[in-house]
Amino acid sequence: MKQILVLGAGRSSSSLIRYLVNESEKENWKVTVADRDVSLVKEKLNNHAHTKAIEFDIHNEKQAEEEVAKADIVISMLPWRFHILVVKHCIKHKKNIITPSYVSDDIKALDKEIREAGIMVMNELGVDPGIDHMSAMKLIDEIRENGGEVVHFESFTGGLVAPESDNNPWNYKFTWNPRNVVLAGQGGVAKFLEEKEYKYIPYHKLFRRTEFIDIDGYGKFEGIANRDSLKYQSIYGLHDIRTIYRGTLRRVGFSRAWDVFVQLGLTDDSYVIEGSENMTYRQFINSFLAYNPHDSVELKLRYYLKIEQDDVLWEKLVWLGIFENKKVGLKDATPAQILQKILEDKWTLAPDDKDMIVMWHKLKYINAKGEEYEVHSSMVNIGEDQTYTAMSNTVGLPVAICCKLMLNGTINEIGVKMPIEPAIYTPILKELEGHGVQFKEKEIRLK
Amino acid sequence: MKQILVLGAGRSSSSLIRYLVNESEKENWKVTVADRDVSLVKEKLNNHAHTKAIEFDIHNEKQAEEEVAKADIVISMLPWRFHILVVKHCIKHKKNIITPSYVSDDIKALDKEIREAGIMVMNELGVDPGIDHMSAMKLIDEIRENGGEVVHFESFTGGLVAPESDNNPWNYKFTWNPRNVVLAGQGGVAKFLEEKEYKYIPYHKLFRRTEFIDIDGYGKFEGIANRDSLKYQSIYGLHDIRTIYRGTLRRVGFSRAWDVFVQLGLTDDSYVIEGSENMTYRQFINSFLAYNPHDSVELKLRYYLKIEQDDVLWEKLVWLGIFENKKVGLKDATPAQILQKILEDKWTLAPDDKDMIVMWHKLKYINAKGEEYEVHSSMVNIGEDQTYTAMSNTVGLPVAICCKLMLNGTINEIGVKMPIEPAIYTPILKELEGHGVQFKEKEIRLK
Repeated sequence: MKQILVLGAGRSSSSLIRYLVNESEKENWKVTVADRDVSLVKEKLNNHAHTKAIEFDIHNEKQAEEEVAKADIVISMLPWRFHILVVKHCIKHKKNIITPSYVSDDIKALDKEIREAGIMVMNELGVDPGIDHMSAMKLIDEIRENGGEVVHFESFTGGLVAPESDNNPWNYKFTWNPRNVVLAGQGGVAKFLEEKEYKYIPYHKLFRRTEFIDIDGYGKFEGIANRDSLKYQSIYGLHDIRTIYRGTLRRVGFSRAWDVFVQLGLTDDSYVIEGSENMTYRQFINSFLAYNPHDSVELKLRYYLKIEQDDVLWEKLVWLGIFENKKVGLKDATPAQILQKILEDKWTLAPDDKDMIVMWHKLKYINAKGEEYEVHSSMVNIGEDQTYTAMSNTVGLPVAICCKLMLNGTINEIGVKMPIEPAIYTPILKELEGHGVQFKEKEIRLK
Repeated sequence: MKQILVLGAGRSSSSLIRYLVNESEKENWKVTVADRDVSLVKEKLNNHAHTKAIEFDIHNEKQAEEEVAKADIVISMLPWRFHILVVKHCIKHKKNIITPSYVSDDIKALDKEIREAGIMVMNELGVDPGIDHMSAMKLIDEIRENGGEVVHFESFTGGLVAPESDNNPWNYKFTWNPRNVVLAGQGGVAKFLEEKEYKYIPYHKLFRRTEFIDIDGYGKFEGIANRDSLKYQSIYGLHDIRTIYRGTLRRVGFSRAWDVFVQLGLTDDSYVIEGSENMTYRQFINSFLAYNPHDSVELKLRYYLKIEQDDVLWEKLVWLGIFENKKVGLKDATPAQILQKILEDKWTLAPDDKDMIVMWHKLKYINAKGEEYEVHSSMVNIGEDQTYTAMSNTVGLPVAICCKLMLNGTINEIGVKMPIEPAIYTPILKELEGHGVQFKEKEIRLK
């Protein structure tokens, strides 16, 4: 019986755990799930015979090492900064490990030790990063195999609300960590390459430099540049590419309205607002506007940011309640924390709401005959409910499938890995298709 | 014979050294000036009998301690981060010390040791900080003495080019560290209090939220908010104030044009531009604009930032040469470094140019009878030449005068000090008047 150790039983582990439990009898697995909150684990495992729930604290080094030592493979769904602690135990006891997070610098630095231990540390195996890598590399590798050269690469992913639950003027609800949504785009300029020209967009212009994307059957979206698109040149081996651009998807109109918050300064997380606890939403907005004893907050805001009387974005702002005399109630809060509070009042999913993951790639390539083509590839995944969300499915299933393929020897590598090699992504993408993660492709001849 | 040790003989030490040398015979002083570049010192001292030039490295602890031990008083004109090293020697050998820089946290932390040694560490004794503190506190203390209460405080200072040398469309030239000018306003939100409301301006809006200020005989200026005006509430004891606002002065129209650079992202010092060395000024600007194979950089910029065809700010941009095919020639440079290079081509003072320091305070107070008054107080100082600049005079003279007053016992305190007490600022301001640092006051009855 193979022992699987899953660390972390939070929201994004639901689909992962369901898959492992469902397969456990057929595959002869024992699935141990560990979390600080053991009741959360028990609820998810439901006393299934092939499972075990344990209370677990990553800071208890002894327990962590003992559990790793007992396992055949480890899956860390912990916050990314804790992976390194688990990886060290995995090296010592020669156990493979999977995480859905970006390869961190400290894990990269252990590559030599990881290779010497003969283990695989598989990272970036969720949806973004994860399914984006796999589906993009499949397209790129196919073009290369046929003697073609990729000259243009764009890729966008978004976590959104499903069309059937989309009933607010922002066409948006929180389907993952709200704090990350509020801070998105900060911490570095957006860099990309367009027709061999390096381009830079500062944060305060990011939400006004979007592009529109049409996805058959799902309508229009807008794409906002991610921070560093340039590093994917080396990751994907696209050294001579003319254009490389990665971004995040929202429904059309979101970014123009969000830019109001950026322009005011409401997304700043670096300082505390004086007297935030007893201030109202309206006073919060007013503290970013010039003083005037007579004019309304509404008119001052319209004038400051040149918002026309008939601009549809105004409805979005009013609907959020930013002009209401509601108490903030957060002590020593940053602008970003207060904004998050305001948004959480309105952008929280209702019990019956479903989420949606949308992914879209656009490539251009020149084939062996010198003809130029454009390829569009898109994937839309709708959540089942509030447990098995699209986010949970698209993050957890690639991890679960990879775990199976590593245990049965189909995937058999050594070192710090990302799913960008055919031997890794081909079997994972194939099985994902059976779980509704399907890409639709479309090719157009350009010249 | 009293021994004065001056550390640092850079540009801002010229007027300080001239004063000390001129007074040295009458006062019976020996003035030792120490710098890494001893030739710089010799040039400034010109073999005067009461002086001594020494080569000095602040990282040579032994030399630093020996020189401090020999002195009766120390003046540190070194970059602010080095003051702490000198202060430690001063504590050990019980010597008073003066610096024109902001009180640093590490100096503040030594207050107990400084008091136990019975010495005075006098800081913030230049122009801004320095003359601004002294002139503001003189006004505030006078109002208080007469039973009045200050309810409104605004204070602005600017280092500018003198009217007779003001011959470019920006009405600006570099009269101090260009790097600080390019980065001004970064590193924290601008906070202030207006009619008891806390107000916050993010960096990307700072140069569009200016106010106009008129100074008799010198015309109009515009004021840009400084980072943290709130801390002056406690420094000046203005706890119940309605409005407190401090800022920087430029000529009218500067900020709207500078905002073009902020909006593009050219003042960012946090990352390096790919291939900066071989890029032209025009390509540099283009890397912040959307790609288009046909449109000009000029039209893309106008369209992006909505600059009207007849807007006068355009002339400022063209005059700087930002659209020219001139090589940047800086390897691995940040946007801010490249912008500084472009500006230095044009904003450098010509040999005959003079600089100017402008300071302006506006206070409102309610007197003992309940009447409300507004006071304006302004000071304009024009530099003599490129050595005895207004900057050098207004930074160096308060330091030099304070040094004399400390040596002759007129100023006699213990601890970490700023010039905000009458016993300190009164004699310094009085002597400064004789050196052309004069404030003009104007009072208006409001109600």
